[in-house]
Amino acid sequence: MRGTMMDVPLTLHALVERVERELSDVAVVSRQADKTVTRTTYGAVAARARQLAQGLVAAGLKPGDRVATLMWNHAQHLEAYFGVPLSGGVIHTLNLRLHPDDIVFVARDAGDRFLIVDESLLPLFEKFRAQVPFEKVFVAQATRPLEAPLLDYDALLTSGTPGPLPTVGENDALGMCYSSGTVGRPKGVVYTHRSTVLHSLVSALPDSLGLSRRDTVLIVVPMFHVNAWGLPYTAALVGAKQVHPGPHLDAASLLDLMESEKVTVAAGVPTIWIGIREALEQNPGRWKLQPDTRMIVGGSAAPEELIRSFDRLGLRLLHAWGMTETSPIGTVSRLPPRYDGLSDDERYAERAKQGAAVPLVELRVRAEAGNVPADGKTPGEIQVRGPWIAASYHNGVEKDRWTDDGFFRTGDVGTLDADGFVQLTDRVSDLIKSGGEWISSVLVENALMGHPAVKEAAVIAVPHPKWSERPLAAVLLKPGMEKPTPEALRAFLAPRFAKFWLPDAFVFVDAIPRTSTGKFKKSELRAQFKDWTW
Amino acid sequence: MRGTMMDVPLTLHALVERVERELSDVAVVSRQADKTVTRTTYGAVAARARQLAQGLVAAGLKPGDRVATLMWNHAQHLEAYFGVPLSGGVIHTLNLRLHPDDIVFVARDAGDRFLIVDESLLPLFEKFRAQVPFEKVFVAQATRPLEAPLLDYDALLTSGTPGPLPTVGENDALGMCYSSGTVGRPKGVVYTHRSTVLHSLVSALPDSLGLSRRDTVLIVVPMFHVNAWGLPYTAALVGAKQVHPGPHLDAASLLDLMESEKVTVAAGVPTIWIGIREALEQNPGRWKLQPDTRMIVGGSAAPEELIRSFDRLGLRLLHAWGMTETSPIGTVSRLPPRYDGLSDDERYAERAKQGAAVPLVELRVRAEAGNVPADGKTPGEIQVRGPWIAASYHNGVEKDRWTDDGFFRTGDVGTLDADGFVQLTDRVSDLIKSGGEWISSVLVENALMGHPAVKEAAVIAVPHPKWSERPLAAVLLKPGMEKPTPEALRAFLAPRFAKFWLPDAFVFVDAIPRTSTGKFKKSELRAQFKDWTW
Repeated sequence: MRGTMMDVPLTLHALVERVERELSDVAVVSRQADKTVTRTTYGAVAARARQLAQGLVAAGLKPGDRVATLMWNHAQHLEAYFGVPLSGGVIHTLNLRLHPDDIVFVARDAGDRFLIVDESLLPLFEKFRAQVPFEKVFVAQATRPLEAPLLDYDALLTSGTPGPLPTVGENDALGMCYSSGTVGRPKGVVYTHRSTVLHSLVSALPDSLGLSRRDTVLIVVPMFHVNAWGLPYTAALVGAKQVHPGPHLDAASLLDLMESEKVTVAAGVPTIWIGIREALEQNPGRWKLQPDTRMIVGGSAAPEELIRSFDRLGLRLLHAWGMTETSPIGTVSRLPPRYDGLSDDERYAERAKQGAAVPLVELRVRAEAGNVPADGKTPGEIQVRGPWIAASYHNGVEKDRWTDDGFFRTGDVGTLDADGFVQLTDRVSDLIKSGGEWISSVLVENALMGHPAVKEAAVIAVPHPKWSERPLAAVLLKPGMEKPTPEALRAFLAPRFAKFWLPDAFVFVDAIPRTSTGKFKKSELRAQFKDWTW
Repeated sequence: MRGTMMDVPLTLHALVERVERELSDVAVVSRQADKTVTRTTYGAVAARARQLAQGLVAAGLKPGDRVATLMWNHAQHLEAYFGVPLSGGVIHTLNLRLHPDDIVFVARDAGDRFLIVDESLLPLFEKFRAQVPFEKVFVAQATRPLEAPLLDYDALLTSGTPGPLPTVGENDALGMCYSSGTVGRPKGVVYTHRSTVLHSLVSALPDSLGLSRRDTVLIVVPMFHVNAWGLPYTAALVGAKQVHPGPHLDAASLLDLMESEKVTVAAGVPTIWIGIREALEQNPGRWKLQPDTRMIVGGSAAPEELIRSFDRLGLRLLHAWGMTETSPIGTVSRLPPRYDGLSDDERYAERAKQGAAVPLVELRVRAEAGNVPADGKTPGEIQVRGPWIAASYHNGVEKDRWTDDGFFRTGDVGTLDADGFVQLTDRVSDLIKSGGEWISSVLVENALMGHPAVKEAAVIAVPHPKWSERPLAAVLLKPGMEKPTPEALRAFLAPRFAKFWLPDAFVFVDAIPRTSTGKFKKSELRAQFKDWTW
C-alpha cells in the first residue's frame, strides 16, 4: 500500500524559499579581509544567490557541473553555498590550507569548471592557476581592476536573466569536499540535497546542537572544511543569525565578534578554544560574552581540562564527532538525564567523550572478532551508516573503506559504553594488534604521562614474532628526574589495564617527534623502532 | 551528477533500532482503565513490538495490510504504533469517539483485516462488530476468558518466530487516520514511513515543540486522533519519557500524573487546558508541577486569556496548528527574538496566533484574487504543501481539496503577517463573500462581543442580490440591557474594520444555537436566515 503523502523532494530550495518567506530580516555578519565588519540579511543573501544561480546558468553551467570556491567565511561564500546548488551546480569548496599541489589534484579530480576566488586569495591562486584548466574564474570583492581572463563576480550576478532555474532532485549532488586523510591522496565526497537537508534537521535537534531562531552562530570552522560542519545550512534552516570571521581567527578578533554580535553558539576545533581560553584567562573582564554560550568542538578530541576551564568561565564546551565522509555530524555529547546524579568528576569524564550517535546514524564499534562489548573499555573501529554518510568516494577510489554490509570504516578507534557513548582513542593506524587483541596506544601513553617522572610518552606497535605486534613506550623524562625501572612503570600502569596492554619495553628519548599540528608523529617513531629486538 | 551518499531509507525501523541501541532504559508510563499506573521501558516496548510484528506475519498479514486499533493511550497502543509498521502493515487507529456507524464506515473504507481492541472497549466494539468483517480480533489486557472468535493479544505476541521481517521502503504506508470533517463522510489519510520520520524530526526542533531526551511528555491528545499529533513517534525519536493517561482525561487525574511523573511537556486540545486551569485555580498549591511545563495546544485556537492565565500559574501554553491531513504539525507559535522588545500585550497577541510554518512546510493564504497581503488583516484560505501533507485521500475522494499547483486547501481561514505568522479566523464555510472580497465572520463577532450590552454574537453570510453575500449579526443581549440601535453597533465596530465588513443587519435573538462541543452552530443560523430580505 502506498501512502497518500505529497512527493516533495528534500532540496536546498526548500530552505532558501523559507528564508525568503519568513526569515529575510535575519542578519548575516562578516568580518572582511581588511578587518571591517559588514552586515547583510538572509533576504539579501538569498536574492544575490538567485542572481548568482542565474548568472552561472547564463555562463553555461549545466546541472551537476562543479563550481569551486577559494574563499574565507563570509556572506559572499554563503551566497555561493545557496546559489551554486540553486543553479543545479555542485559547490566544491577548495581547502586553502592544502599544499598548492594538492589543490591542483582535488580541483582536477573534481573536474571543476568555474572558480570563485576572494581577491585576498589571488596570491594563493597564482601558485596553481597554470595547472588547473578552470574555464572561468570570478573574483569576489574585487577592489582593483582585474586582468583578463579574470572576471568580476559582481558582474556575474547581473549577467543572468530572471526565470525558472533547473529542476533538482533530492538525490542530485549539492556539494563536494575532499577528505585530506593522513594516508594517500585526498578523496572526494559528494553531498546531495537530501543528505544536506537531513543533516541540517538532525544537527539542529535539541539533543544535537540545539540550534534555534534565537541563536547567533559564529562559524569559526572554515567553510572549506566539511561545509563548516554544515552550519551555514543548519543556521539557515532554523533562522539563526550567522557571524563569519573571515580570515581573522586569532582569539581577540573572535572574542570581539562574540561580544559585539552577542554570539550564543560558536563552532571550531580544539586549538581555537585553547587560544580563546588563554585570552580570556589573561584578560579577565575584557570581553562580556553571553552566559552559557555553547562552544561546539570537533575535529579532534578536546581534553577534559578544557571543558572544565570553560565551565569556570561560564561557557559550555559541547563535544561532537564526525568527519568529511559523515557530513560531518555523527555523535554529540549530551548527557542523558540520569547522569544528573553523578559527581562532577564523573560528569566531566562523560562530557569528554564524543557522545552518542544522533538520530538516523547507526554507529557500531568493531574489533576483528565483531562488535566490541558496550563496556566503555574495549576499543574497536568506529563504523557508521546513515543517510548523510558517504557510500563511496568520487571516482570510486578506496572501496575497502566500506564493509560488506554497508558501513563506512571511519578509521577512528574508540570505546562504546552502555548508553551508546563513544570515546575516541586512536586512529586505526595507531592501534597495536597483539595476539588477535587490540591495544589502545593512546590510553596507555596518556596513563603513562600521569607518572610523576614522565613529561611525555608515546606508545607504538613494534613487530613481534609471536604476538604479531607488542607495545613499546618512548618516554621523555621531566628535567632532573631519575629514570624509573621498566618494572616500576609497569607497576604504575598495572591497575588500569589488562596485563597484555602493558608495554614490553620503555625507551628513554631526548624528544618525541611531532607533526606540524603538535601531534605525536608515530609514523616516525615506528620507522625508528621497526627492527627492535625483543 | 549523483551524490555519493548512502541510500538509507527514512523508515520507522531506524527509530525503533535507535531506541533499542541507545534508549532502552527510558520509561513509558501508562494509566490503565482501572486507574492503576504501570511502568515499562522503551526497550521492553520495542521488544514486544517486534514480537507483535512477528505474530502479525504469522497470522497472515501481508505488507500494506491494515491493522485497526480501538485503544486508549497506553504502552500497548505504543507497541502497536511500533509493531504494526515493523511487520510491514499499516496501523489504522479507530476513533472511539465516532458514532458506531462512522466507525463501521471507516473500518470498511480502509479495508481493515485485523483489529486490536482494549478489553475495556469491548462494549463499544459489540455495537459494530456485526457490520465489519475483521478476519481476526485480538483483545489486549484481557482479564477475563475470551469467547471465540475473540483472540488473546498476548498470545499473538508469542505466536510468531524470530526472523527477518518484510523489507519496507520509505514511501510505503505506515498508518492511517480519518479526517472527520464537518462536511460529508470521513476521509482516509495514509501516512508513510518517510512522512512520519520527517514529521518527527521537524516536530522536535527547538523552534517547533523543542523535544529532547530530558523531556517527559504527557500525551493527552488521543492516539486515535492524528497519531496523537505524532508525539509517540517524536518522543521515541528523541528519547523523551512518555506518559499515557489511558481513558482518564479529567483534570485531577492528569495533574496527578504531571506531578508524580515530573511532566515537562503536555499536549492536548483547549478544553483539556481550560479544565486544568480551573482545577489549578480552585486548588492552589495542591499540585507541584515542573516550572515552565510546556502545554502544547492545538485542534482549535486557544483564547489569549488562557495563555495569560497559564503564565500566571508558571506554565507555558504553546500554540500549534495542523489537521489530520497535515500529520499534523503545520505551524508553531514561537516568537522571533525581535519580539522581545514588544509590550506584554503585544506579545500575548502574537502568542495567540498560530505561528509560522515549520521548516519544509510551505504555507500560503489565498483569497479569490490570489495570495493575500502579509498585513495580518486580510483573511484567506490557508493552503499548505510539504512532505508530510496529504496529496490525496484514500480511494481518491474529494479531489477538489487540492489546487492545480499541488497545495492542500485546508478549509481553515486566517490572516498572514510579515513574519509569516498565521492567525486562524474562520472555516471557509463561515466566511462571507461580499462583492468578491472576503469578510471574516469570526473577527466581526469577536469584536461585537466586546460591546458592553452584548453577551453573545454570531455573524453569518446571508444571500444578497447585489453583493452575493452580506453579513448579518445574530445578537444575544446581556440580561436587562437595552437594545442598542444598528447604527450604534456599526459605530462601535467601525474603527476596527473596513466599511464593507460591517453587518447590514442586527437581529436580537433569545439564544444562539450551539454544537455539542459548544461552538456556534452557524449552519443552523444560516438556514434560519436564508430567506432574509435586505
